Amino acid sequence: MASSNGAPTAGKLWGGRFTGGQDPIMTQYNESIYFDRKFYSQDIRGSIAYARANTKTGILTSAEFAEIERGLQQIHQEWESGSFHIHPGVDEDIHTANERRLAEVIGKDIAGKLHTGRSRNDQVATDMRLWLREQIEQLERYLVDFLKVITARAEKEIEHVMPGYTHLQRAQPIRWSHWMLMYGSFFASDLQRLREVKARVNRSPLGAGALAGNPFNIDRDAVAEELGFESVLMNSMAAVADRDFVVETMQWGSMLMTHLSRWAEDLIIYSSGEFSFVRLADAYSTGSSIMPQKKNPDSLELLRGKAGRAFGQMAGLMMSVKGIPSTYNKDLQESVEPLLDHVKTVGDSLQIATGVISTLDILPENMHKSLTPDMLATDLAEYLVRKGVPFRETHHISGRVVALAEKEKKPMDQLSFAQLQGVDKRFDEDVLAVFDYQKSVEMRSAKGGTSRSAVMEQIEAVKKALAGEK
Amino acid sequence: MASSNGAPTAGKLWGGRFTGGQDPIMTQYNESIYFDRKFYSQDIRGSIAYARANTKTGILTSAEFAEIERGLQQIHQEWESGSFHIHPGVDEDIHTANERRLAEVIGKDIAGKLHTGRSRNDQVATDMRLWLREQIEQLERYLVDFLKVITARAEKEIEHVMPGYTHLQRAQPIRWSHWMLMYGSFFASDLQRLREVKARVNRSPLGAGALAGNPFNIDRDAVAEELGFESVLMNSMAAVADRDFVVETMQWGSMLMTHLSRWAEDLIIYSSGEFSFVRLADAYSTGSSIMPQKKNPDSLELLRGKAGRAFGQMAGLMMSVKGIPSTYNKDLQESVEPLLDHVKTVGDSLQIATGVISTLDILPENMHKSLTPDMLATDLAEYLVRKGVPFRETHHISGRVVALAEKEKKPMDQLSFAQLQGVDKRFDEDVLAVFDYQKSVEMRSAKGGTSRSAVMEQIEAVKKALAGEK
Amino acid sequence: MASSNGAPTAGKLWGGRFTGGQDPIMTQYNESIYFDRKFYSQDIRGSIAYARANTKTGILTSAEFAEIERGLQQIHQEWESGSFHIHPGVDEDIHTANERRLAEVIGKDIAGKLHTGRSRNDQVATDMRLWLREQIEQLERYLVDFLKVITARAEKEIEHVMPGYTHLQRAQPIRWSHWMLMYGSFFASDLQRLREVKARVNRSPLGAGALAGNPFNIDRDAVAEELGFESVLMNSMAAVADRDFVVETMQWGSMLMTHLSRWAEDLIIYSSGEFSFVRLADAYSTGSSIMPQKKNPDSLELLRGKAGRAFGQMAGLMMSVKGIPSTYNKDLQESVEPLLDHVKTVGDSLQIATGVISTLDILPENMHKSLTPDMLATDLAEYLVRKGVPFRETHHISGRVVALAEKEKKPMDQLSFAQLQGVDKRFDEDVLAVFDYQKSVEMRSAKGGTSRSAVMEQIEAVKKALAGEK
Amino acid sequence: MASSNGAPTAGKLWGGRFTGGQDPIMTQYNESIYFDRKFYSQDIRGSIAYARANTKTGILTSAEFAEIERGLQQIHQEWESGSFHIHPGVDEDIHTANERRLAEVIGKDIAGKLHTGRSRNDQVATDMRLWLREQIEQLERYLVDFLKVITARAEKEIEHVMPGYTHLQRAQPIRWSHWMLMYGSFFASDLQRLREVKARVNRSPLGAGALAGNPFNIDRDAVAEELGFESVLMNSMAAVADRDFVVETMQWGSMLMTHLSRWAEDLIIYSSGEFSFVRLADAYSTGSSIMPQKKNPDSLELLRGKAGRAFGQMAGLMMSVKGIPSTYNKDLQESVEPLLDHVKTVGDSLQIATGVISTLDILPENMHKSLTPDMLATDLAEYLVRKGVPFRETHHISGRVVALAEKEKKPMDQLSFAQLQGVDKRFDEDVLAVFDYQKSVEMRSAKGGTSRSAVMEQIEAVKKALAGEK
Repeated sequence: MASSNGAPTAGKLWGGRFTGGQDPIMTQYNESIYFDRKFYSQDIRGSIAYARANTKTGILTSAEFAEIERGLQQIHQEWESGSFHIHPGVDEDIHTANERRLAEVIGKDIAGKLHTGRSRNDQVATDMRLWLREQIEQLERYLVDFLKVITARAEKEIEHVMPGYTHLQRAQPIRWSHWMLMYGSFFASDLQRLREVKARVNRSPLGAGALAGNPFNIDRDAVAEELGFESVLMNSMAAVADRDFVVETMQWGSMLMTHLSRWAEDLIIYSSGEFSFVRLADAYSTGSSIMPQKKNPDSLELLRGKAGRAFGQMAGLMMSVKGIPSTYNKDLQESVEPLLDHVKTVGDSLQIATGVISTLDILPENMHKSLTPDMLATDLAEYLVRKGVPFRETHHISGRVVALAEKEKKPMDQLSFAQLQGVDKRFDEDVLAVFDYQKSVEMRSAKGGTSRSAVMEQIEAVKKALAGEK
Repeated sequence: MASSNGAPTAGKLWGGRFTGGQDPIMTQYNESIYFDRKFYSQDIRGSIAYARANTKTGILTSAEFAEIERGLQQIHQEWESGSFHIHPGVDEDIHTANERRLAEVIGKDIAGKLHTGRSRNDQVATDMRLWLREQIEQLERYLVDFLKVITARAEKEIEHVMPGYTHLQRAQPIRWSHWMLMYGSFFASDLQRLREVKARVNRSPLGAGALAGNPFNIDRDAVAEELGFESVLMNSMAAVADRDFVVETMQWGSMLMTHLSRWAEDLIIYSSGEFSFVRLADAYSTGSSIMPQKKNPDSLELLRGKAGRAFGQMAGLMMSVKGIPSTYNKDLQESVEPLLDHVKTVGDSLQIATGVISTLDILPENMHKSLTPDMLATDLAEYLVRKGVPFRETHHISGRVVALAEKEKKPMDQLSFAQLQGVDKRFDEDVLAVFDYQKSVEMRSAKGGTSRSAVMEQIEAVKKALAGEK
Repeated sequence: MASSNGAPTAGKLWGGRFTGGQDPIMTQYNESIYFDRKFYSQDIRGSIAYARANTKTGILTSAEFAEIERGLQQIHQEWESGSFHIHPGVDEDIHTANERRLAEVIGKDIAGKLHTGRSRNDQVATDMRLWLREQIEQLERYLVDFLKVITARAEKEIEHVMPGYTHLQRAQPIRWSHWMLMYGSFFASDLQRLREVKARVNRSPLGAGALAGNPFNIDRDAVAEELGFESVLMNSMAAVADRDFVVETMQWGSMLMTHLSRWAEDLIIYSSGEFSFVRLADAYSTGSSIMPQKKNPDSLELLRGKAGRAFGQMAGLMMSVKGIPSTYNKDLQESVEPLLDHVKTVGDSLQIATGVISTLDILPENMHKSLTPDMLATDLAEYLVRKGVPFRETHHISGRVVALAEKEKKPMDQLSFAQLQGVDKRFDEDVLAVFDYQKSVEMRSAKGGTSRSAVMEQIEAVKKALAGEK
Repeated sequence: MASSNGAPTAGKLWGGRFTGGQDPIMTQYNESIYFDRKFYSQDIRGSIAYARANTKTGILTSAEFAEIERGLQQIHQEWESGSFHIHPGVDEDIHTANERRLAEVIGKDIAGKLHTGRSRNDQVATDMRLWLREQIEQLERYLVDFLKVITARAEKEIEHVMPGYTHLQRAQPIRWSHWMLMYGSFFASDLQRLREVKARVNRSPLGAGALAGNPFNIDRDAVAEELGFESVLMNSMAAVADRDFVVETMQWGSMLMTHLSRWAEDLIIYSSGEFSFVRLADAYSTGSSIMPQKKNPDSLELLRGKAGRAFGQMAGLMMSVKGIPSTYNKDLQESVEPLLDHVKTVGDSLQIATGVISTLDILPENMHKSLTPDMLATDLAEYLVRKGVPFRETHHISGRVVALAEKEKKPMDQLSFAQLQGVDKRFDEDVLAVFDYQKSVEMRSAKGGTSRSAVMEQIEAVKKALAGEK
């Protein structure tokens, strides 16, 4: 029954498009060269390290290695200068492209020995890990820069007081710097996590072969050391099957982007006409094609929108990886493009966020205008607590004061002392001192609070985190 | 306190990178021209229809309209011939690019009237919907082609019997065509859904303006009709805020890809050395760089892997859309790139799947070898049912026969009649006729079953679905 | 090598916890009775219809059927009255529980015939579809109620004008009713989609057997008709493998929840102290345990938060379904719990949203206060358009007026006529009439706009959608 | 315009369901007591530590503290013994329930002081973190147990050789233990990650108040120490806003479940009739209601299916958290239920997996039968490599031998020496020794390979990981 397996649809009832042995859509569907060429440098470095190690296994003579190294360095130059020519339909991926070219440069006899004991399975994993390690180091620098601006601003602008919100309702007065350091705290955790992820990315799969290991007793530790890997992946099947390092990086990235999104959301709200606490620099805003008065916080909205994109890449890859059996399956090729875009998205976003916060104007007078005396209702309750009244009772008393002010259509601090006494006899004349926003923030001096000293302590904590201390 | 809002970081403590008024990363982060130029043709058609309608509102004279139409057609030609020159940093998106060029071609005085009453908010939504409608029509054709191959094969290869699996355990004999039509059934539902989605995509936002509607009483129905839209979106704020048509398309696409993934998973398992039911054409397989004997079903694995990618795009956009307030926010720009890639991924995947099934060899002798007599245990139980024994009891009796065969280390059909009678006296001599796979499949003749007539009925049902009948 | 397969770890080096043949965690991990008992009624109705059809195939006599029907009706009563007693560890799922009880009630001889030709695979799919169909009908009623309140309010409160926002920046004046109808438009599409989904849910899998079909030529159409199904699933393998009806319902639900989330987000922002456009009823707000003045929009925040939950259920099931081969695999059991919670979440959310909108107070004076003359900059440009100036030019002129007002620190409508003329000579005295918010909204009278007549037209359109017209 | 804000719909056109001031659906939609009572013990411990610290701030006397401690311990007893009575509609959450009861037990005057300076915002975060820390410690124990069984089996069954697969195609012979250790390697990384997550979970938010910090200068370090926290969250706004510890745990859990899913997928395939490499214990299998011969790997399928569920919970929460502004919003309540279920799902799954692997039978003779000589094609190429032939050339030569064997319809090892020489003269007589599967695996002796010594080294590496060494 089985028909001959040559031209795809020769003599098939249901054929049509396929007249020869090739389907051009399949070629394009399958090839990765147009994105994995990003790894040209890593691929070459990996090959040199691998070849060097093979001089000790007897696969290569020193002279052969020298030729391979020379050839690969020339190819590296070609990539750098833009003169490397991809052969469409032949150079399926970066590995075949580089090896094809090596044979042209140094001849097939020696070039043909390079791939001994190696598979594209361990090769691509090596390339990706080397590339990602470098990218993570770059991301780490961006994140550190961002945190430095946050702490610098927090230090410089510590005097400004604004409403703190819960449920987007005015809750209690806080320092503007306290708001900034909330995000400082999130991003400092991101930094800690990134360093942990890096350690797991930076492990060497090279020498795992297709899946079963290297048959020439190659010194995997030496290869790993030359390439700057911290350690060696200890099971050859896991080494080629594992894209956890990509998933983990994207889990990290989507959590970071979630933080950037919440940060952007706050600033978008604070930029609205109704709040007007901050004003974005023109460099991070755009106008409208129809409404001349508009100045839109596009940078912040893009940050917020790209958080979805970053999450989607992680979610998509997790679904792909989840559905496959062990070792390498071609499905794993689908890890590359999302990773490339993810890392770029996160890196750009960190730089944009740094630009926004570096150039943002604040409007402290508007922050102040938005403070209302009822935000001190908790302070009023605490005033009575200090006089020995149980908090639950003071909470009710303060609530009655709030209700009275509403009924009288007056701000709470405009109620007369008599009116306050009418609510509860334990109010003394000194109660009026409660209605002071600066005093309110200074009261919150326990660790992590919004008083000046507590805020300064937070700044120091973030600085320590930058230096890698926990 | 507010500093002057000019050069991003002039005189700022925390500045650095930003020395002028522009951040080049922001330009690139913000601009969409490098992907939304895909919509050049839709953008031009939309503008022509919009301008034509504005001759009736008095915004344009007929002569002005003629100029605009001429200019836009010239620009269309430039895009088609590849001679359109994007001005980097100026042509932020396809809309500004086309309008900038129009002013060059026909002069600012007339070109400057084109955008009257229109916003990029309704313009981009129009472009995307027009583009997507055409893509959906293409996807529909791919899906119909795929279903035609499935039905043609199902008809031609109806005689072959193979094991049907539940839990990946051999369950009951089925026809190979029955297996194909399971997927035929899924894909026919996909086709029905796609047609429903298309109707919602194909609605016109043009004339919604930025958000509040058109102030020159433009005839939105006429515009919609010229552009082939089925209807007009009835609320201007919804019209610019809505990316449901993208989400819905990607929900559709990720469900379709789920079906392709399960289909591919089956075929990958059936291609394994242990099953060997099918053999992929070389055109859809690839070899190994290290193992000379390998022939890998890369096409199927890519289908399976790309299902994750397609899902991730949908998930990411849903997250982005979920987190925004009403009307247009720049976050929505993040709907474009995922959509472009999603539609291409789904379209390519359908073509690959069609290629695979068109060229797949089946190995019916191996299918047959994999059938085992214990797969007829249910038939054996049913034999007794026909003699009036309650099914629950027959199920236990048949189970005892299975256990006996295991104990005797014989296939069930090699047990002697005496042995069967030893299990239950109600077995008559005609029981041996049960052990016939062809008979077993023919017994399942109720609608939807695996008998020849029931399978033929399914083929007719799919054919009706292709024609749009439910 | 293979050890005997009795007690899990008898004589195994690595055993420990498992001393008998059973693992209690496995029992609990596997059983579904504690959630699928929700389907008791559907399960019983399905069994009755199935048994009735089997009187025509000769499996059951009329008398046997009568007994089965009587027994099942008694069991139904037991469930209704709460007297059905689940046997832990025995009643693995609702199907085995009901059949176990039937044997107790009418005896094994007849009860044992019920399951003839049927599998739990087609049975559970039937139960789920019947249950879901009824739930969808309930969801449809909730959605219709919600839309009725929206249209009623939109009609009654049509006079109020508020700022319309894009990018959360004040853009143009709109009617409050126009804002409501934006969401009316989204929810009307949800209604249309729900009706389409229902048609695909409402198809009968019964008679598919385990996977290969029914061997007694049961009349599947008659069974489907008795159960109120619109049609029969045409391939028995697809019938048991398919959880698309669950995925599709949850795709629908997560899109609806996205709309509720955006709606809630708007209202949360409008409830903030800075906006103060609306005030939630106490019934949908909560207080703070520490801050006496707080009134938090918890209902809206829960709506927003539960959108994530609903999405997660859909995403999780898609991942589960994506990763399995054809027909029934136990993974599919994981479709039940998410569906139950999803449907409840969506139904509750629709009711909460209806409650919120039914009881919401609006504060039109605050809406009006938030309108600013620069929101009429587009109207100013359009004024010149009507005098023949190209829009692009008017946009710049109007932009210069905005800048002048900013420089003069005056609202735009407080600039003198002379100052306007200083910007452009083509301004006539009648330009001052532009600065009128009511006039501005009335200008947007094209279909879908924010003028009174255009809003009324939208209300009619939603009403038609409720009636099922497209 | 604003109507009075009392009974939800009094006098409202659009009212109906709401006749009083309460909506019962809102009560149920809002309350969390029915799931957060899981935290009763943590809530009480947190309150005791908090109260103790407030003896130093002067809020409580020693006598008052003693009363509070006594009362809370009594309440703890009531929960433990099942005698705590929840007041429906009053006890909104575990915090209000416990405080309500405390007032009953020790009187309002003292009980009313407990909540001083505290908010439910920091309280719930404390409860969740304490609870999760303990759960993580339990998960760690389950994971360690699982890894111990893996290593014990790997050591004991090291002699068995089976086919290794890439792309689910037979690739190279490997040890069965090597397969197990691939997953050992994944799970060891999971263990490392879990320990990192725990450190971030185990930080104290207590003393953050609603958002602005504690106004009575409470000693947060002392509170944290009493509760066993490693450190204090350094910004009060971040402390209440942060659900990253939940997201991170669920990111961890969904990655672990992905590994379990791939592991289960392998074993399901190996359990199929066609492979037959392993046989599940009855305790982890189930039968069929219709097919007497079936034994289905339900435990493994549930593991695979629940991976989707675990992912969905993570994805859903990320979407919820992503869409909110800073500090506490009620949306965050949606973090609790998914977390509870996630932790249970992961914990159960680890125990099931441990049970499965502890009781699994392997069928080494079937593994061996599945090995085919063409799986040694790479070894054949390597044979020539050792003779100095470049690998690329040997790959082609070996490929020609494969083709010859196919053409001759013989296994490759049945080709005659003459036939091999016909392909390439460099084959010597010793080539026949290549066709030995045990030799093949022993050749792969480089680190991470499948030789006996390399596998033993991996076992040691996993053991070190269990002990916390990297």
